[in-house]
Amino acid sequence: MTINTQPTAIMLVIGNEVLSGRTKDKNIGWVAEQLTNHGIKLVEARIIMDDHDTIVETIRKLSKEVEYVFTSGGIGPTHDDITTSAVAKAFNVPVLRNEEALRRLKNHYKGTGIELNSARLKMADIPEGALLIDNPVSAAPGFNIENVFVMAGVPKIMQAMLDGILKNIKSGSKMVSISIACKIGEGNLAQELQNIENADDNIEIGCYPWFKSGVIGTNIVVRSLNKDSCQRASIKVKNFIKTFGETPEIIE
Amino acid sequence: MTINTQPTAIMLVIGNEVLSGRTKDKNIGWVAEQLTNHGIKLVEARIIMDDHDTIVETIRKLSKEVEYVFTSGGIGPTHDDITTSAVAKAFNVPVLRNEEALRRLKNHYKGTGIELNSARLKMADIPEGALLIDNPVSAAPGFNIENVFVMAGVPKIMQAMLDGILKNIKSGSKMVSISIACKIGEGNLAQELQNIENADDNIEIGCYPWFKSGVIGTNIVVRSLNKDSCQRASIKVKNFIKTFGETPEIIE
Repeated sequence: MTINTQPTAIMLVIGNEVLSGRTKDKNIGWVAEQLTNHGIKLVEARIIMDDHDTIVETIRKLSKEVEYVFTSGGIGPTHDDITTSAVAKAFNVPVLRNEEALRRLKNHYKGTGIELNSARLKMADIPEGALLIDNPVSAAPGFNIENVFVMAGVPKIMQAMLDGILKNIKSGSKMVSISIACKIGEGNLAQELQNIENADDNIEIGCYPWFKSGVIGTNIVVRSLNKDSCQRASIKVKNFIKTFGETPEIIE
Repeated sequence: MTINTQPTAIMLVIGNEVLSGRTKDKNIGWVAEQLTNHGIKLVEARIIMDDHDTIVETIRKLSKEVEYVFTSGGIGPTHDDITTSAVAKAFNVPVLRNEEALRRLKNHYKGTGIELNSARLKMADIPEGALLIDNPVSAAPGFNIENVFVMAGVPKIMQAMLDGILKNIKSGSKMVSISIACKIGEGNLAQELQNIENADDNIEIGCYPWFKSGVIGTNIVVRSLNKDSCQRASIKVKNFIKTFGETPEIIE
């Protein structure tokens, strides 16, 4: 069952440091949560290497599959920052010195004693035709070309960029969800939850087992684009939990 | 520059709850770190939905691209646990009740008062010909079919399963890395670090900027399969940092 009046998106994290385990990605979870709140459905997330051809091919493929592709990582001043040139290549446009990006960088570094050298100037190089994405933290902008939004990898900067982006793009229907916790193993819930899910095409039910201090339990999440469906199903779930002599607990 | 006497791997996380942002994935970072320590190169990580066709197609494609595919999620007892049937389908084999898995589940639940009902019995259903992966936490096994290792999504269980797997598969050359921190903006380091990297095909240099209490700095990571190359390059990096009047600090 797929219900979808929501734009779809893929998150693409670019960086060897994430795949080596040196850096633990925090951007996917953040983007996932923000998109959900915005009514955009994240259908996949992917982490790839700082490899030019890999980035080019991945951007070309994914940008055709969904409404929005968000990327993080690889737009800084150093030699391993190759995302900008790879994304430009994916859309067959040149990378050009962007006057507005240059103005922002000059303004940012003015009076800091930090030289706007050739490495830093690279951050003013943007694919032709792309729109700048504001960076209120450290000035160097991200950019939007076609349906691809290219953001910094540093979480604080990525989060600020995403805030700006989400104010300007089409949002979708909000997913409503009700989360219910109980001290019952998921194996005892499985069959009836499937029945409840099957009874209404508008809902999805997720089951997440937990173990705390020797106690086994399950969090049940009912999700729907339709508020009434969500509530009806969650009442069924709560009543079912009560048949075990347990008190369902609404969480979050 | 790619140096590779290491087996390659892809990590595949399966679960709507991760893409909705409800659950923050902790498995990719863990697997990344363990594989790096084991000399296996993680070339991609991907998070996909609990969708049967998506899982089938993704497993078919990725299992041809690398030596090992590791998955987490979707092997529990509930209706949204569809990884087992999808992986079986990917390799065109049936799912069968596995006698050894059944024995382990019976043993685990014996005397607990928890019924081994039809939902829980589903966890003894394994693709034909697959080898079981031990689950020392909650008995229900993962499995290995062809080059795909199917693990649980709960981090504690996934970690225990991976421990067992890594004792039994081919490891590769260990990547050696030296991490150096300095209070210099990466924009001042970029050109010379690229020169140092270009001087030796055996090394990779990563640059990771940081901001702490108003101080700007960069962590520089020199990585190589060759210990001597790594040390030679890191000496060059340290000497370069000293030219700024800064003291390089070895971290980790």
